[in-house]
Amino acid sequence: MNMKRLMLLAIALVVAVGVSAQSRLIECKMESKLLGTEKEYSIYLPDGYDKSDRSYPVLYLLHGANGTHTSWPTSGNAKRIIDGVIKEGRSVPMVIVMPDASGEGKDHNGLNFGYFDQTNWPYERHFIEEFIPYIESTYRIKADKRTRAIAGLSMGGYGTMFYTMRHPELFSSACPISARMSGTPYNKNRSYTDEYITTLDSLAGVKIAQSLSDEQIAALRQVRLRVDCGDDDYLFDGNIDFVRALRSHKIPVEFRVRDGGHSWIYWQTALPDILTYVSIGFME
Amino acid sequence: MNMKRLMLLAIALVVAVGVSAQSRLIECKMESKLLGTEKEYSIYLPDGYDKSDRSYPVLYLLHGANGTHTSWPTSGNAKRIIDGVIKEGRSVPMVIVMPDASGEGKDHNGLNFGYFDQTNWPYERHFIEEFIPYIESTYRIKADKRTRAIAGLSMGGYGTMFYTMRHPELFSSACPISARMSGTPYNKNRSYTDEYITTLDSLAGVKIAQSLSDEQIAALRQVRLRVDCGDDDYLFDGNIDFVRALRSHKIPVEFRVRDGGHSWIYWQTALPDILTYVSIGFME
Amino acid sequence: MNMKRLMLLAIALVVAVGVSAQSRLIECKMESKLLGTEKEYSIYLPDGYDKSDRSYPVLYLLHGANGTHTSWPTSGNAKRIIDGVIKEGRSVPMVIVMPDASGEGKDHNGLNFGYFDQTNWPYERHFIEEFIPYIESTYRIKADKRTRAIAGLSMGGYGTMFYTMRHPELFSSACPISARMSGTPYNKNRSYTDEYITTLDSLAGVKIAQSLSDEQIAALRQVRLRVDCGDDDYLFDGNIDFVRALRSHKIPVEFRVRDGGHSWIYWQTALPDILTYVSIGFME
Amino acid sequence: MNMKRLMLLAIALVVAVGVSAQSRLIECKMESKLLGTEKEYSIYLPDGYDKSDRSYPVLYLLHGANGTHTSWPTSGNAKRIIDGVIKEGRSVPMVIVMPDASGEGKDHNGLNFGYFDQTNWPYERHFIEEFIPYIESTYRIKADKRTRAIAGLSMGGYGTMFYTMRHPELFSSACPISARMSGTPYNKNRSYTDEYITTLDSLAGVKIAQSLSDEQIAALRQVRLRVDCGDDDYLFDGNIDFVRALRSHKIPVEFRVRDGGHSWIYWQTALPDILTYVSIGFME
Repeated sequence: MNMKRLMLLAIALVVAVGVSAQSRLIECKMESKLLGTEKEYSIYLPDGYDKSDRSYPVLYLLHGANGTHTSWPTSGNAKRIIDGVIKEGRSVPMVIVMPDASGEGKDHNGLNFGYFDQTNWPYERHFIEEFIPYIESTYRIKADKRTRAIAGLSMGGYGTMFYTMRHPELFSSACPISARMSGTPYNKNRSYTDEYITTLDSLAGVKIAQSLSDEQIAALRQVRLRVDCGDDDYLFDGNIDFVRALRSHKIPVEFRVRDGGHSWIYWQTALPDILTYVSIGFME
Repeated sequence: MNMKRLMLLAIALVVAVGVSAQSRLIECKMESKLLGTEKEYSIYLPDGYDKSDRSYPVLYLLHGANGTHTSWPTSGNAKRIIDGVIKEGRSVPMVIVMPDASGEGKDHNGLNFGYFDQTNWPYERHFIEEFIPYIESTYRIKADKRTRAIAGLSMGGYGTMFYTMRHPELFSSACPISARMSGTPYNKNRSYTDEYITTLDSLAGVKIAQSLSDEQIAALRQVRLRVDCGDDDYLFDGNIDFVRALRSHKIPVEFRVRDGGHSWIYWQTALPDILTYVSIGFME
Repeated sequence: MNMKRLMLLAIALVVAVGVSAQSRLIECKMESKLLGTEKEYSIYLPDGYDKSDRSYPVLYLLHGANGTHTSWPTSGNAKRIIDGVIKEGRSVPMVIVMPDASGEGKDHNGLNFGYFDQTNWPYERHFIEEFIPYIESTYRIKADKRTRAIAGLSMGGYGTMFYTMRHPELFSSACPISARMSGTPYNKNRSYTDEYITTLDSLAGVKIAQSLSDEQIAALRQVRLRVDCGDDDYLFDGNIDFVRALRSHKIPVEFRVRDGGHSWIYWQTALPDILTYVSIGFME
Repeated sequence: MNMKRLMLLAIALVVAVGVSAQSRLIECKMESKLLGTEKEYSIYLPDGYDKSDRSYPVLYLLHGANGTHTSWPTSGNAKRIIDGVIKEGRSVPMVIVMPDASGEGKDHNGLNFGYFDQTNWPYERHFIEEFIPYIESTYRIKADKRTRAIAGLSMGGYGTMFYTMRHPELFSSACPISARMSGTPYNKNRSYTDEYITTLDSLAGVKIAQSLSDEQIAALRQVRLRVDCGDDDYLFDGNIDFVRALRSHKIPVEFRVRDGGHSWIYWQTALPDILTYVSIGFME
């Protein structure tokens, strides 16, 4: 972002803050040293955020393949849905952060695509070591496990799961929706590197869940897990295998199967119950 | 039933018919030649049944182990739930029949327990050859596949499935709830005969579904199947295996997993959506 | 429509029919003699329509102020929602017709705006005498009261109500959503003619409902009525008054108040239950 | 309670505590000086209560006319419903207290019947000055406004409302269900004293709401109000009038109308959403 755009953004922010305490869903950027570039994100600040000095719990809400940090705000109708659920009294006010794990190219699934580390693109490290700390120091957020949750759809459900299984100390609740739980590459028409395919496979939800250490099992029992996948979803079987693997370790997991496929209708109708679920977790 | 009880029943019916066209859920009996005894059943006649001469679609609603034909009416709160769903406009008026597959003894799981044929107790033949014809000639019922449906809970879900897979020409919709899909004997403390155990196993939903003939597969594609099982149900895995087996044959099946275990709360909350689902099937 | 466009449309239809039996939501036109112009409409043809020769029930689904026949298809996400509900078994396959009652100008609320008759613009007559007959002779529709329903949002809920109260012989079910039930002009910034304001007021749901004749009351008891309005809707009070007026005449009416305001989230989440409700009415 | 019963109760409690940390719904008694007698109550202690030393939020859950402190536990199926909703992650663990406002006689609506003060029976004073303090010092409860909520059905909705309007400093959320909002005496066959009728009328939700002082209005804006009443309930109109009266003062109130009448099905299905609603309020 050049100087002029920064100034305009700053002015826009001041205006927004000045005139209203209503909720906002805005697009922002941060500088990533690990990735050597700026990364965009969207962030939802609840009604009252601008007027108070209180801190809020936070939900990281991940997009799927072919998506970006703008997918939940546009296709997902996120602001209106979140506003409604909070207003209705089914969710506490929270900050909701939508990161960007898109790759290059028209469909966003080219180079540097995905939530995990690749050569010269340590995205997982960026997310855990840079992004979360940046968000939680930039916004008024209660930065502890109890008040931090993660959710995501499809590839973002994959990210939700491997972040949770590798960093269970970070999140009180984790809610994959229509998640890619196996390591099959997303786009068969694209030629992935061997490294990409190997990493993808090794981080798949099912694979990790099947080979957890006792220490990991104990830690995961301290995360509230809730898996939601449509009965017509082409990723259905992976979700079943994932739930079964967790249960074989006696790790509690909520599981829901509603009607539907791999679609925004499913994800939009999933969001309200997830907001309730993570809210309850923020308090326990 | 002796003459005196028959007279009293007749009088009760006349009184009921005379004073009201409201829905009724009553207990009745029929004489079974195949079983060599009387069998009881409960039947729901919808509001308007007594005043009109129209025929109605029919749902057979099966009880579980330890239950009888009075389980849905009492523990299941069936009449109030059905009345409400019809009144609300989410179900067409229909006749709902609750048969009795209980066995002897305190917990109803002794001799002659279950929906299948046993030596000297051809219950499946009774159900298919006697009970359905008796009901559909005694009450004003549209007696064809399109307007006939079946549902049941636990052991009644087991019955729902093997009746449907062996007689797919009979039902337009079949809806097992929290079904026992494997052939493990119900009560470990009871000593079952070898015949019982062998039959139970051979008729298990998963087992039949895994070994369907092409003809059976074609016929089952003409039945609307809807499987509902709680994520905390101890029978959950069997339901998953059953759905997967059907899908391996490209037999369409709706699948729902809601929160809950093997309990009347789950079954009571399952019933409204099943009434809607079978209603839609009556029309298509 | 000129000859060339007609030919292209015909070719498009043939192609569509040839390649697929899947559901379609398409935009079409008809010639209105009463209005002296072409009128557009959108129409949903269910999966199977192109392959079979059966006739279907029909739902007329009306848009609100500032909208057109494309509002439900775009903002309402109609095709995906309807596809899902039918596939799920909660609705029978039906034809769904979205007429156009928009006026001139940027916001579609200028000249010739609304569902009622105005000087030189007899829209109600067009809808009842031309549009319904045209649709039901052009598509394979079961053209009788039992299999015809109407629903609409906001101004389309207003239309739903006064069409139903003036033509109760036409519809088995009528489902206004977030309906404008009073006659207050929609847009305060626009200068309406005295005729417009007088007509609007005289056709308001509340007003008609308060002054029904015995004959009208008897006829309306033969229509299944279902009113749905959000608790935060600025039109909430009119819906309450309407329901109370109907009940003062002992006309049965279902009433639902969910959380929400005057928004597409409310209308999108209203649609599935309405599809179920009118489906049940098609059968009774 | 005599010495022997006290001992048995103590033993029962020790046993219960000793063997299990599971939730319990038990019947207890307290000595009321204001009423000059013992009063019974039921109390739900959530899973984990016995094992931890943490304090919990509290919900007071009031019964209706003809009921007692055992109505929610028996007809309301309270324990299983609450267990399920907490387990599902839609409610925080909380203590739920069911007081007894029944009167004498077979139907519990004779002498000393109701939630308000009567001559020689200062029940409101008892509830506010004795019962709440007793409960909150006897059990581990976070005794402040934010973590205290109230709900009730029918006559208990009446009590919920007048306690809230007269003591808004006590509750963060108040949720009447199918509430009697007008002051019409409950049982027309019983001869009430003039005092009873006058008091009942003066404390009716609608009446109080229509004549609130500015101070009361300001205080009530600090209570989360949620009114739920079935569209077929004979008390429907009073709920409408109550909501309108609150809104005329710009007091926010959530309002829901689902299908149903004045029945336990309605109240049982109301409870889960109320547990979510009050949970969210405990955190804000």
